Amino acid sequence: MKGEIINVGTEILIGDILNTNAQYISKELSSAGVSVFFQTTVGDNPDRLMSVLKESVERSDLIILTGGLGPTQDDLTKETVARLLGLDMDMHTESYDKMMSFFHKISSKMTQNNLKQAYMPVGAHIIPNENGTAPGVLIEHEGKVIIMLPGPPRELVPMFRDFVMVYLQGKSQDKFFSNYYKVSGIGESALEDMLIDIIDNQTNPTIATYAKPDEVLLRVTANAKSEDEAKLLLDKTDKIIVDRLKDNLFAREDISLNGLVAKLLIDTSTTISLAESCTGGLITSRLTETAGISKCLHSSIICYSNDSKIQYLGVRKSTLEKYGAVSRECAEEMLKGLIKNNNTDMAVATTGIAGPTGGTEDKPVGLVYVGIAYKGNIHVEEHNISGTRHRVQLKSANIALNLIRKQLIGL
Amino acid sequence: MKGEIINVGTEILIGDILNTNAQYISKELSSAGVSVFFQTTVGDNPDRLMSVLKESVERSDLIILTGGLGPTQDDLTKETVARLLGLDMDMHTESYDKMMSFFHKISSKMTQNNLKQAYMPVGAHIIPNENGTAPGVLIEHEGKVIIMLPGPPRELVPMFRDFVMVYLQGKSQDKFFSNYYKVSGIGESALEDMLIDIIDNQTNPTIATYAKPDEVLLRVTANAKSEDEAKLLLDKTDKIIVDRLKDNLFAREDISLNGLVAKLLIDTSTTISLAESCTGGLITSRLTETAGISKCLHSSIICYSNDSKIQYLGVRKSTLEKYGAVSRECAEEMLKGLIKNNNTDMAVATTGIAGPTGGTEDKPVGLVYVGIAYKGNIHVEEHNISGTRHRVQLKSANIALNLIRKQLIGL
Repeated sequence: MKGEIINVGTEILIGDILNTNAQYISKELSSAGVSVFFQTTVGDNPDRLMSVLKESVERSDLIILTGGLGPTQDDLTKETVARLLGLDMDMHTESYDKMMSFFHKISSKMTQNNLKQAYMPVGAHIIPNENGTAPGVLIEHEGKVIIMLPGPPRELVPMFRDFVMVYLQGKSQDKFFSNYYKVSGIGESALEDMLIDIIDNQTNPTIATYAKPDEVLLRVTANAKSEDEAKLLLDKTDKIIVDRLKDNLFAREDISLNGLVAKLLIDTSTTISLAESCTGGLITSRLTETAGISKCLHSSIICYSNDSKIQYLGVRKSTLEKYGAVSRECAEEMLKGLIKNNNTDMAVATTGIAGPTGGTEDKPVGLVYVGIAYKGNIHVEEHNISGTRHRVQLKSANIALNLIRKQLIGL
Repeated sequence: MKGEIINVGTEILIGDILNTNAQYISKELSSAGVSVFFQTTVGDNPDRLMSVLKESVERSDLIILTGGLGPTQDDLTKETVARLLGLDMDMHTESYDKMMSFFHKISSKMTQNNLKQAYMPVGAHIIPNENGTAPGVLIEHEGKVIIMLPGPPRELVPMFRDFVMVYLQGKSQDKFFSNYYKVSGIGESALEDMLIDIIDNQTNPTIATYAKPDEVLLRVTANAKSEDEAKLLLDKTDKIIVDRLKDNLFAREDISLNGLVAKLLIDTSTTISLAESCTGGLITSRLTETAGISKCLHSSIICYSNDSKIQYLGVRKSTLEKYGAVSRECAEEMLKGLIKNNNTDMAVATTGIAGPTGGTEDKPVGLVYVGIAYKGNIHVEEHNISGTRHRVQLKSANIALNLIRKQLIGL
């Protein structure tokens, strides 16, 4: 089923409000097997609304309109839809009574313009609004379905969930099921390169990638009559994808890397302490986003100065003089210091040059050492990360989080 | 000038991401005197994109497209625009070289699909992208202006602000001048309430608010023929706004609170050390976003466990037993420990209950102590912050940053 969304409201066009309705409705429609091909926002202007409406009725089976159902003069959605479909407007008694009792309840006199909200296109189904005065409207017309809902999310969302979704699920036979793959340490384009043959030949299931800062979500969606049938379709691609993603695949759900790592630490009751230099606390602050981490996190030393590396981690002055703070040797001593001081199961350390200044020829900006100590082993990796200071810090943090993850799941 | 926005991306149509670009661009265009009549979101599908493009070129003077400039197969915005306008695509050497050196720098092989990003419609102006690999494109064609920008906001926003807005102002005779007010510790709606009379009566200057997590940017824009004329218009509202914002106003430019505080520390060569418990490193990681902070930041102890408070900060066991870790007394001893150990000009400490669990009747979730030691004085504030764990951590961090700011400017 082809669907589209038309949001009516000048306040959206001048950027006064963020259009969260479009996202909410799109997500719901996708889950109900409706392919949303267009989202259009148009102002409270009958001619422009009419031009958008005409086109939408030609190209889509389902049109959801939001906004423009209110009492004021510029609320013209119902009237414009009725005009396009050649339907008369008529007083809807139930809605009228409901509105009267509403105004009675708040013991305020109903102004004339509110009456407008009780006039409905003839033959329309009315969608009750439990959180406002403007009812929703559903019209089935020559094989097309047109649904109008009020703009305020607190009115729209319950109406959509409790009425529109029930209506749609009754109509469609197809169901949609998805596999999720969360990937880190590899960019969106490299990921698609890796899967290009599958992506090029996708029909059912379909494949989509969504990049978030230094994380990519891969979604594989099958469309079938039953969950079993969908599972068969998904299993075919699943093995290939998992083989190719290797270590980069860190979750089979849409979870952040730091959220997953915090969960692993908590579930395995692993205590951890950290020493962050170039990452400046980013790893620890991201771990502490997860409730319950206090059970595992002993402490983290953000040892930005050389003094603090000596003072809190027992890094030797001679090491700093001989190899510098950004060195494998320093990272190792940071780890040893953490283990000695904190007696935690795991220790993690970062030291590097985040930039943009401070680089030299043999130690350029982006040179980062990330180390981990666990079960008696010390492992330090050298990385060269390009880009802004922000990117160097973010990638360094994710490299560290990924090291923790691999150690905890024994990779 | 009539404008419209076309957001290209299937991920928006299936509701996986919220379309914040449409709001941002609409707000900016309105402030530049462009009337936005349509926002359209279309998927990564050349035919549907073409149909939307055709129509937009007929009805609008300025068309801003976002998304679909990346390296992957389904990134087709440039190609579709070129096809509509009958322009050939050609390799843009500068963009190619920039990309090559980027991949050379990260010493990773550039995959073939990345090349795509260097091919540009012949005769187009290229908009450099400092935060990603896909440049933007501006085409002037038969009196119409078509601008293509990458989808990720952290790439799009700087390009729009530094290039597109400058370009648009160059085109119109009217010039736009703005006052900026950066506010923390007060929400967007509370801020609008505070200024409702000015907002309701706005014609010239116009007022717009931009909410970021726990920070709001207030922009007052006057439209005039000359800077002097604009200045007169802006001065009228300036006094009123500054009076009403009081302490909440932390900057007269669009700078983050942590960026401002880092700058103040660097400019005044003030050394600082921190002890973060409930904020888990958030304050320090935000300070270290600013290059050059290494000159000021000695260290930060994320003392999540009681042991670490004793071990690294010399908090007395008896204090923890008698008053608990979340107490004024503990915060004071954390500060004293920092001063004693680190000999920095300033020390900052946080301890609190971020939640969602761990609260008690006399110490509820959201109880936070934020302390600062500077020039021999120790000052500890008690706060009760409502909301999620994330909000408690974020607000606690901003309270601390604001304390540092006030101390440094002698408030």
